Amino acid sequence: MSLATHPDRLLPADPGTRGIARELLQRVQDLPIISPHGHVDAAVIEQNTPFPDPAALLVTPDHYVTRLIHASGISMDKLQPGNATPREIWRHFCAAWPLFDGTASGYWLRTQFESVFGWRGELSAEKADASFDSISAKLAEPGFRPRELFKDFNIEVLATTDDPLDNLESHRALAEDPSFHSRVLPTFRPDAYINIAHPQWAANVERIISEASDGGSGYRGYLTALENRRRYFVDHGAVSADHGVRTPATLKLEEADAEALFEKARSGQATAHDRDVFEAHMMYQMARMSVEDGLVMTIHPGSYRNHHQPTFEEFGADTGHDIPVATNYTESIRPLLQDFGTAKDFHLVLFTLDETVFSRELAPLAGFYPSVYIGAPWWFLDAPDAMLRFRSAVTETAGFSRSSGFIDDTRAFCSIPARHDASRRIEASFLARLVAEHRISEDRAHELIVDVVDSSPRRVFKL
Amino acid sequence: MSLATHPDRLLPADPGTRGIARELLQRVQDLPIISPHGHVDAAVIEQNTPFPDPAALLVTPDHYVTRLIHASGISMDKLQPGNATPREIWRHFCAAWPLFDGTASGYWLRTQFESVFGWRGELSAEKADASFDSISAKLAEPGFRPRELFKDFNIEVLATTDDPLDNLESHRALAEDPSFHSRVLPTFRPDAYINIAHPQWAANVERIISEASDGGSGYRGYLTALENRRRYFVDHGAVSADHGVRTPATLKLEEADAEALFEKARSGQATAHDRDVFEAHMMYQMARMSVEDGLVMTIHPGSYRNHHQPTFEEFGADTGHDIPVATNYTESIRPLLQDFGTAKDFHLVLFTLDETVFSRELAPLAGFYPSVYIGAPWWFLDAPDAMLRFRSAVTETAGFSRSSGFIDDTRAFCSIPARHDASRRIEASFLARLVAEHRISEDRAHELIVDVVDSSPRRVFKL
Amino acid sequence: MSLATHPDRLLPADPGTRGIARELLQRVQDLPIISPHGHVDAAVIEQNTPFPDPAALLVTPDHYVTRLIHASGISMDKLQPGNATPREIWRHFCAAWPLFDGTASGYWLRTQFESVFGWRGELSAEKADASFDSISAKLAEPGFRPRELFKDFNIEVLATTDDPLDNLESHRALAEDPSFHSRVLPTFRPDAYINIAHPQWAANVERIISEASDGGSGYRGYLTALENRRRYFVDHGAVSADHGVRTPATLKLEEADAEALFEKARSGQATAHDRDVFEAHMMYQMARMSVEDGLVMTIHPGSYRNHHQPTFEEFGADTGHDIPVATNYTESIRPLLQDFGTAKDFHLVLFTLDETVFSRELAPLAGFYPSVYIGAPWWFLDAPDAMLRFRSAVTETAGFSRSSGFIDDTRAFCSIPARHDASRRIEASFLARLVAEHRISEDRAHELIVDVVDSSPRRVFKL
Repeated sequence: MSLATHPDRLLPADPGTRGIARELLQRVQDLPIISPHGHVDAAVIEQNTPFPDPAALLVTPDHYVTRLIHASGISMDKLQPGNATPREIWRHFCAAWPLFDGTASGYWLRTQFESVFGWRGELSAEKADASFDSISAKLAEPGFRPRELFKDFNIEVLATTDDPLDNLESHRALAEDPSFHSRVLPTFRPDAYINIAHPQWAANVERIISEASDGGSGYRGYLTALENRRRYFVDHGAVSADHGVRTPATLKLEEADAEALFEKARSGQATAHDRDVFEAHMMYQMARMSVEDGLVMTIHPGSYRNHHQPTFEEFGADTGHDIPVATNYTESIRPLLQDFGTAKDFHLVLFTLDETVFSRELAPLAGFYPSVYIGAPWWFLDAPDAMLRFRSAVTETAGFSRSSGFIDDTRAFCSIPARHDASRRIEASFLARLVAEHRISEDRAHELIVDVVDSSPRRVFKL
Repeated sequence: MSLATHPDRLLPADPGTRGIARELLQRVQDLPIISPHGHVDAAVIEQNTPFPDPAALLVTPDHYVTRLIHASGISMDKLQPGNATPREIWRHFCAAWPLFDGTASGYWLRTQFESVFGWRGELSAEKADASFDSISAKLAEPGFRPRELFKDFNIEVLATTDDPLDNLESHRALAEDPSFHSRVLPTFRPDAYINIAHPQWAANVERIISEASDGGSGYRGYLTALENRRRYFVDHGAVSADHGVRTPATLKLEEADAEALFEKARSGQATAHDRDVFEAHMMYQMARMSVEDGLVMTIHPGSYRNHHQPTFEEFGADTGHDIPVATNYTESIRPLLQDFGTAKDFHLVLFTLDETVFSRELAPLAGFYPSVYIGAPWWFLDAPDAMLRFRSAVTETAGFSRSSGFIDDTRAFCSIPARHDASRRIEASFLARLVAEHRISEDRAHELIVDVVDSSPRRVFKL
Repeated sequence: MSLATHPDRLLPADPGTRGIARELLQRVQDLPIISPHGHVDAAVIEQNTPFPDPAALLVTPDHYVTRLIHASGISMDKLQPGNATPREIWRHFCAAWPLFDGTASGYWLRTQFESVFGWRGELSAEKADASFDSISAKLAEPGFRPRELFKDFNIEVLATTDDPLDNLESHRALAEDPSFHSRVLPTFRPDAYINIAHPQWAANVERIISEASDGGSGYRGYLTALENRRRYFVDHGAVSADHGVRTPATLKLEEADAEALFEKARSGQATAHDRDVFEAHMMYQMARMSVEDGLVMTIHPGSYRNHHQPTFEEFGADTGHDIPVATNYTESIRPLLQDFGTAKDFHLVLFTLDETVFSRELAPLAGFYPSVYIGAPWWFLDAPDAMLRFRSAVTETAGFSRSSGFIDDTRAFCSIPARHDASRRIEASFLARLVAEHRISEDRAHELIVDVVDSSPRRVFKL
């Protein structure tokens, strides 16, 4: 039996516990996919254009995948669509395939090959062309176009991540299309309008003030414009605003101080310290706006973006060298929580790439503040063992009701079912252990797995 | 069979390992409870006044419990004895009961309901009144008064936590009572006399100098007064002095510098930095006094107390929003250990809310310094999985002889047996795994479990 | 059956998983030992002088062992060869032997007693003399001399750690000895020539410039001398240069600034900050030299050396009180990786004593940079549970190809087989779990265990 389809994959080895896990898994295996945060392009779904080729679908856009090929010694330019043919890229990938053993990416890829594209067995340099041709042929079939896969994958809700000035046309079109029965929701992601260090910050600020400030100007106009664009997102179905920040620092500046900093930055005079202070202040403002307009606020901190400057300069962002740093929430998030931690209907989902934060900070925060939810294991931590460590770290303090439910956070559309399936298997495994250790009853575990897989994301993301 | 009384609860699922664990557990299950650090009020035992009602006994004083109800959306005022009737508070608790699944608090509560109060089955909003009435009826019975429970619980030693100027009358009365066969010991806890930022610090300092300095004044009189009150505690049976600090920083100031800082603080001029320096210096002084008077020194650092200022202002301290922060011991504890790390009969027990410290710092420190003992997993970490992670993190470096033995640290009197029982089950589970993996012999494991459960706390706390 | 020889020792308890692990272990159990980093003295092998006595062989040089005896209350002077007879020291060790239960050192010692010296059963105060005599008798036999044990242990490669000015005579003699069939390789370790705070730094700098700078002087001469001595090491078989640093900070100074700092330090004026800056700069230089001469660069950061000043003053370094501190790699190693992270054939092995770095930083770094390899769990983390945590932490991001393979890093020669055997058992255990959970195939696991045990160290250390 193949690994990718083995019914017991990811379940615990102990036979008694595995038996319990199997039953729990069965309870949720056919539930629809709720994906409240990710990076799929709505236009791809809306326009239903066929996926071009296996490399463009499965390798080049996925920096989880290209990074490990790069680490094996293949230079980045050999993995770039402009520099190499899809088939050449695919050959590099196949040659590197054994390196993916034991990785989360390897698990998802294997599942896709078999469950989506019907390709069985291991990949290898020798099988590169055969697998390329086989998957290419599938991609040419009508059943493998985005909307058909969307339906096959049983996705009920898929959130995208969007620029504040995006007109959200694809989202509107999908919402109005009577033949499309799922929900594709935009997410407001204003990093490039908030982080002064962003190369486009000044231009973005001019543009958003000019387009959305109702005629206002300066710092006031900037806030008004952000508020208006958030409202536009809400009107187009958005349920959350997402923030990628270096640290989760928050700060409430006096209006005059914020304004002065804003103008200093516009004139190109801001220091690194100014940038940090302004970003922290804007996180506070974003929370204030979330309290007002109801968008769930999600924070993704702690990644040192574009760690290798030469690669960034040549190949741009999202090329596999964003590296986590130590993160601390307790003191940094406090200014925000002072004022909004108990605000009615405010939802704040805190993610981390630093596992130490789970038991030390996130579970204690979420176990007190009604607004705070613990974000699912993110990025490098979205993997079977890491997910088990996460549950073990947070549950004894915060129970099952204070976490976000699974977040796939992916730009790899075809990996969505594999990721959600893996998460469900791990939830079943964790709960099965608690049952086997007589810590919760089997009946209660059957309720809880439905809660974490289905009810939690709906509740936390107001779906 | 109910979860709370299942003989295998918390034991490992693997049948072979479980069998070994059962045998180990049996070895210690009936040993008396040694509780060298906690927050029960000695007067409650001494006066043997009946517990008022289920909410006042099990909910309102226990911020582990109220915090999760609060997180579920119940505002703090609805959980306050002044604002709501006990029955109303109990109803909120019962409605929130499913949220406690998988938590340590839920485990202890369930065990109390069944093993202490004979209430079986799940709580729920529907069963709120019935359970309230049932437990209330029990509390009215003579067998459920504090001294009777104390005896039922098989507690041999219970340490309380006390203000340095407490007259320790209840401790004296219990010690002199021929009908009371256990030991209730005070613990010297001088935080509010050491931390300049404490609202009562200046007043406390005046008072302790005036009452206990043998006529001395100023910084010298302050130290003398602390020494005298420690001696008073020793004379009333105390075995340890406990210190709740934000960081474990220690520092040896010159006498003149310490005196200047002390006077600056009394005149209300101390800065936040002064506070940190003075506290670090006083930790050094406390160690010096412990070397002289023999009180075991325990340090509980790393909690950001009263994280949510509005809740603190309205409802006071210990209301569920003390949140851990990252902690480092290696450099901060060094000044103290330079001078006292190898001092004869000095015992220093180091606790942490930051699990990363276990393998990185505490096990290496305790594996060299004869004075240093690793404190049992504390607070949010006093939970089955966290206790297993603790043992796994420290044992390979420090073995079993360098840790404190279990510390319940609780103000919830009726949870004491459940907590100690849980700890014993986890110790049995951990040792059973080492036996199953042929890392220690079964005979030796039978000795070790008695050592960690019974001999360790006696040895470390000089009982 | 004794613990030390039980065929299933360290293997997982679950019978199904254990069965898989047994098969995997069998695949590698007889492979030769590759030890690319350690602290055995090459002269001991070369001269083949008999080991003097059990205490001198197994206790006094091994600060893993003396530290725990010291923690039990035996003062350091009672463990010093000068102050106490070998038999007296051995008695202290035997009395402390029960404290080693559950520790990694205890495991290695037990294995040595039984597998190397044929001593069965537990040690104890009562058995001190008998065991001392028994092992002493063995040590007098010709078969127990270093070269004979070297052969028995099936060591193919053993790297030592050497001063840059060492003449490497023993290494040369061994390489030229036709009767010696293994490789004993030097390792370039320049800490005492780079760290300004080292008591011998100024003298070392004078000496290395005078002996190896080709007549150069000043900072330039210093770099030339280091380059020349590295070349000398390469010519004597060295494959790596090792760096013990407080933090993994790296920095590229301008030549003039580096020179000024160097001269300031030589004149005794350097501050603590200067020391850090210079060390960071020299780490950059060491990487530059590794790119040029091909020596693998290994970094061992994060230990607070000689934590207890009084013990250091009386008994010197390596006496058991080097204590880990929190470590961060992402930002600190970045300057080095900017310039050399993708350099051809550059190998950089990053170790840590801070487990939090494994999943957060090392796996992500090694999963992108072709130069970066994750160092095996080091020192306090070289232990069964810690090794499993390591694999769990890094594999899901970086797979199996990006780590160094096992490093024993020991000065305890006779513990080498026990350490490698323990590592192999843990690798088998980890892989067996992945097989049991259907995450990798059994066939692939059989390839992977050979890769991690044998191919990885050869590949990473260019052997």
